[in-house]
Amino acid sequence: MKRRDFLQLVGRAGGAGAVYQTMTAMGVLHRPLNEPLDLTGNGKGKKVLILGAGLAGMSAAYELRKLGYDCKILEARGRPGGRCHSIRRGTVETETDGATQTCNFDPGLYFNAGPMRVPADHLTTLNYCKEFDLALEAFLNVNENAYYHTADPKFQSLGGGKLRHREAKADMFGYTDELMAKATSEGALDKELSKDDRDALMQFFGSDGWLGPPIQPKTTDDLNKPRTGVYGPNMRRGFSVLPGGGDNPGKLSTPVDRHTLFQSKVFFGFGYEQYIDFQMTMLQLAGGTDRLAYAFSERLGKVITYSAPIQEIRNDGSGVRVVYKGAGGAAREEKADFCICTIPFSVLKSISNDFTAPAKAAIDKIGSQYAVTGKMGMQFKRRFWEEDDRIFGGVTLTDQAMTQIVYPSTGFQSKKGVLTGYYNYDQQAEEFAKLSPQDRIKRALAEGSKIHPQYDAEFESGISVAWHKTPYSLGGWANWSDEQRKNEYALLLKPQGATYFCGEHMSYVGSWMAGAFESSHETLKQLHARASSG
Amino acid sequence: MKRRDFLQLVGRAGGAGAVYQTMTAMGVLHRPLNEPLDLTGNGKGKKVLILGAGLAGMSAAYELRKLGYDCKILEARGRPGGRCHSIRRGTVETETDGATQTCNFDPGLYFNAGPMRVPADHLTTLNYCKEFDLALEAFLNVNENAYYHTADPKFQSLGGGKLRHREAKADMFGYTDELMAKATSEGALDKELSKDDRDALMQFFGSDGWLGPPIQPKTTDDLNKPRTGVYGPNMRRGFSVLPGGGDNPGKLSTPVDRHTLFQSKVFFGFGYEQYIDFQMTMLQLAGGTDRLAYAFSERLGKVITYSAPIQEIRNDGSGVRVVYKGAGGAAREEKADFCICTIPFSVLKSISNDFTAPAKAAIDKIGSQYAVTGKMGMQFKRRFWEEDDRIFGGVTLTDQAMTQIVYPSTGFQSKKGVLTGYYNYDQQAEEFAKLSPQDRIKRALAEGSKIHPQYDAEFESGISVAWHKTPYSLGGWANWSDEQRKNEYALLLKPQGATYFCGEHMSYVGSWMAGAFESSHETLKQLHARASSG
Ligand SMILES: Cc1cc2nc3c(=O)[nH]c(=O)nc-3n(C[C@H](O)[C@H](O)[C@H](O)COP(=O)(O)OP(=O)(O)OC[C@H]3O[C@@H](n4cnc5c(N)ncnc54)[C@H](O)[C@@H]3O)c2cc1C
Ligand SMILES: Cc1cc2nc3c(=O)[nH]c(=O)nc-3n(C[C@H](O)[C@H](O)[C@H](O)COP(=O)(O)OP(=O)(O)OC[C@H]3O[C@@H](n4cnc5c(N)ncnc54)[C@H](O)[C@@H]3O)c2cc1C
Repeated sequence: MKRRDFLQLVGRAGGAGAVYQTMTAMGVLHRPLNEPLDLTGNGKGKKVLILGAGLAGMSAAYELRKLGYDCKILEARGRPGGRCHSIRRGTVETETDGATQTCNFDPGLYFNAGPMRVPADHLTTLNYCKEFDLALEAFLNVNENAYYHTADPKFQSLGGGKLRHREAKADMFGYTDELMAKATSEGALDKELSKDDRDALMQFFGSDGWLGPPIQPKTTDDLNKPRTGVYGPNMRRGFSVLPGGGDNPGKLSTPVDRHTLFQSKVFFGFGYEQYIDFQMTMLQLAGGTDRLAYAFSERLGKVITYSAPIQEIRNDGSGVRVVYKGAGGAAREEKADFCICTIPFSVLKSISNDFTAPAKAAIDKIGSQYAVTGKMGMQFKRRFWEEDDRIFGGVTLTDQAMTQIVYPSTGFQSKKGVLTGYYNYDQQAEEFAKLSPQDRIKRALAEGSKIHPQYDAEFESGISVAWHKTPYSLGGWANWSDEQRKNEYALLLKPQGATYFCGEHMSYVGSWMAGAFESSHETLKQLHARASSG
Repeated sequence: MKRRDFLQLVGRAGGAGAVYQTMTAMGVLHRPLNEPLDLTGNGKGKKVLILGAGLAGMSAAYELRKLGYDCKILEARGRPGGRCHSIRRGTVETETDGATQTCNFDPGLYFNAGPMRVPADHLTTLNYCKEFDLALEAFLNVNENAYYHTADPKFQSLGGGKLRHREAKADMFGYTDELMAKATSEGALDKELSKDDRDALMQFFGSDGWLGPPIQPKTTDDLNKPRTGVYGPNMRRGFSVLPGGGDNPGKLSTPVDRHTLFQSKVFFGFGYEQYIDFQMTMLQLAGGTDRLAYAFSERLGKVITYSAPIQEIRNDGSGVRVVYKGAGGAAREEKADFCICTIPFSVLKSISNDFTAPAKAAIDKIGSQYAVTGKMGMQFKRRFWEEDDRIFGGVTLTDQAMTQIVYPSTGFQSKKGVLTGYYNYDQQAEEFAKLSPQDRIKRALAEGSKIHPQYDAEFESGISVAWHKTPYSLGGWANWSDEQRKNEYALLLKPQGATYFCGEHMSYVGSWMAGAFESSHETLKQLHARASSG
């Protein structure tokens, strides 16, 4: 496998830059997040205008109204949720170049075009699910039966370019532990470790690599014997013939060639599920992630004005004035004491405003480097990945442009299913985005068939979203470098007059729904303190 | 952590001996299992008596009836399913010493006293779920947020004896990879590996151990640089302060002391989820595993006679004759052309029969070494493991006698919940089994509170099953040594006259429901071939 691709996956699956953004955090102590958002006092008589009915904007309005503020949300789209968007039969997607698709999945099937999974540590997201009584299900980010796939001709001897996660891991850890046990027993760590610790390490190598004879403890002495030896077929790697009843003990499968395995760099794929935000248990919203967006919008009702794209933002003396395109296309105006602007910088950078020159420059810079990312939902006649490949949920990673297949985590053994046919970033996403919707499907089928030959026969329909070509998003999420966090980020955390910048981009949980909520709560604290003191 | 306990877990969680049983299989090629059970011909006019309405017996009757056989099942208990048993409000459990418990969980809550999880490779189990249209859900056997716990005073410096799985793994792999990278760069593997493979290995150590500066690839050259360096706080281990909105980048947590970690032997716990039958994705039956048993019994209706314990089995000339205790306690007799006996050997060894002396001896030997195992379901007022500890499903392992806590994989963020308060084996199971049901609860609370101090305040009710003290089971599952597979197992695979031995014990998938099904299918092939030729 090309190491480039897997490194990118590890580094970028959580949003480009997610890794290093958070690394800069070391040593800085902040408040714990499991505190409730605990604002007291009263916002009566104060008007707050909120730009954007995404999760940041809607949660801001929802919380402000608890405090008595008068809120109004202006939203460009005809629906709530922004990037928190699920696609079902009848959903229409139009991209900036005019290409239009209408979803014709079977009733009941859906595709999460934006957020699909919630880490167990994203407390604000989970808290709102609880507050709105929304059911959560397991999202299976880890499945040892899914594949690591490479299209590289050099590595087709690795199971036809397709190793189960369990096989790749068992072989990689097995061979490595065997080498390490040998080196250690030959003295390689004699200077580094005490005898006790070397002995412990030898036991670790034996058990981690499933080395030597299998564990069959009879006495405590047996248990303390280091398990060393050579790597071979074992109960982590699994069977080539499953064991059964009667006289059928099954047959263990055979490890792949060590040199080819090492050179394939498949091990870079292991990191995908180790990264903090991608570890099990992950959760998903039953029925589609947009249930969360609609839970807010149902409670907000007429607070939201839809199809009202902002065209101008002015800090008018003590308050704010915005101009938007109202029903019928006429420009309309709205005034308020405060404004919370949740418009992504990728969009905001082209909206007329009277912010300071450094703020304008900062918005322009960050707004120009939003993540390029795309996803496709594909409906198949038959859940062949379950029936034929025994893959129940999880992720297959590939070095093709499609990057990954995400299998559904529910509805097991039911008739049809929708899987995520691709979910990619950067150059790979651009390769798909520049194609017409029909050609994207052709390419997804061509690449996907290399992993699942059943694709062509079983495919029914597909729909794709190129987020940087989607109006009012124009990108997946904000990217920040360390440098930019110190400068542009710090600058934009301060309000411009009465206008606050808010959304996933104004958080250290960027590219996650929790980022939108965390930023919203942070903004409310600032705004409420100012409103209360004023 | 005591290595004994974790080795036992790894070696025995799948049934004592499961590891080495299957290892003996190497080199023997058998049929693939995804073939359907494809029996043709007709059993009309032939009568088959089946002893036991567990999964083996019921699936045998179900399949035989498709072929036209006349079937009758005699079952000792008043319910179907045998070990496939779920406990709900009102379920009564009486043990061999007379101790009786009645479940008083809230309506809707249940506890799988026997089987709770299905590996993705257990095709016969999954096939029956599909045939009966039973919904499957994810069973979360892996949760990086769950704990490895030790009560050993020596190791309390490891997070108070409680490390999250992610923390233990990150630190263990991190420290080890750091040591190995150093040794390798100092030449420890120069004789073993080519330069290319050493370079690949150095990259593996870097990425597996999350060593050195985090990945922030800018160019292809960057990506090819080996990630070496020292182990420190990282994005696998996670945060001590979660990142948030605004000016809160969070704080990475600090690794524990290396020497203490190595000596704790916590790494033996990692194998639990690596063993083939315990890898993700695992599945569970929605609503309780006994849905599968009831799906059979509903279809079999009057084929099953309940409360009819067998007391004698005689091979009568060409057929079989059994004596059982009928309604009112009177001895009754039943005759048939064939008999499929699914009574566990632990019970069968005390039933009068006219098998050959070697068969009697074999049944007695295996029947005397059934697994000692126990489980407790505990209902709590509040799902504190989710609310306070962010544990959604998964397993906490401990070196206390309780061995493990299994958290529910569904119903997240709902009000109450039932978790598996202990699930243990051998000596540990015996320690609980010998206590009264009330004292078992006391002990489970005492041990559990060391992990979750919320236990005492939140506990509502509990019910336990000691399988070796449960009538008509008298043990968890059969154990076979390699030697016994060659001798006793081979002998008992052959019928005694017209009587076939069948059940999980007559399979290489022992201690799993699939073992019952596989054995049943194997028996049917033999029986049907004989009946068809006779
Ligand atoms: C492909 C993809 C996958 C993701 N996966 C996950 C995941 O698995 N889990 C997770 O937690 N998060 C995930 N996220 C991130 C999550 O979707 C976002 O962080 C979150 O939804 C952002 O919310 P927001 O309110 O900050 O922004 P938005 O949702 O973008 O809201 C901004 C709102 O402003 C509106 N707007 C824009 N321009 C104007 C204008 N001129 N006038 C008026 N209104 C305007 C927009 O229509 C939109 O409704 C994913 C995102 C993407 C793109
Ligand atoms: C604690 C525990 C956990 C388990 N966990 C899992 C799991 O997670 N997943 C999984 O797939 N499997 C699991 N199993 C294994 C699974 O439950 C068994 O392998 C399977 O149910 C055995 O089915 P059987 O038909 O062979 O035996 P049984 O279910 O024991 O059926 C035998 C039947 O014979 C009846 N009988 C006994 N004596 C007489 C008599 N004298 N006269 C008439 N009838 C009699 C019994 O009442 C019973 O109904 C677990 C088992 C236990 C004990």
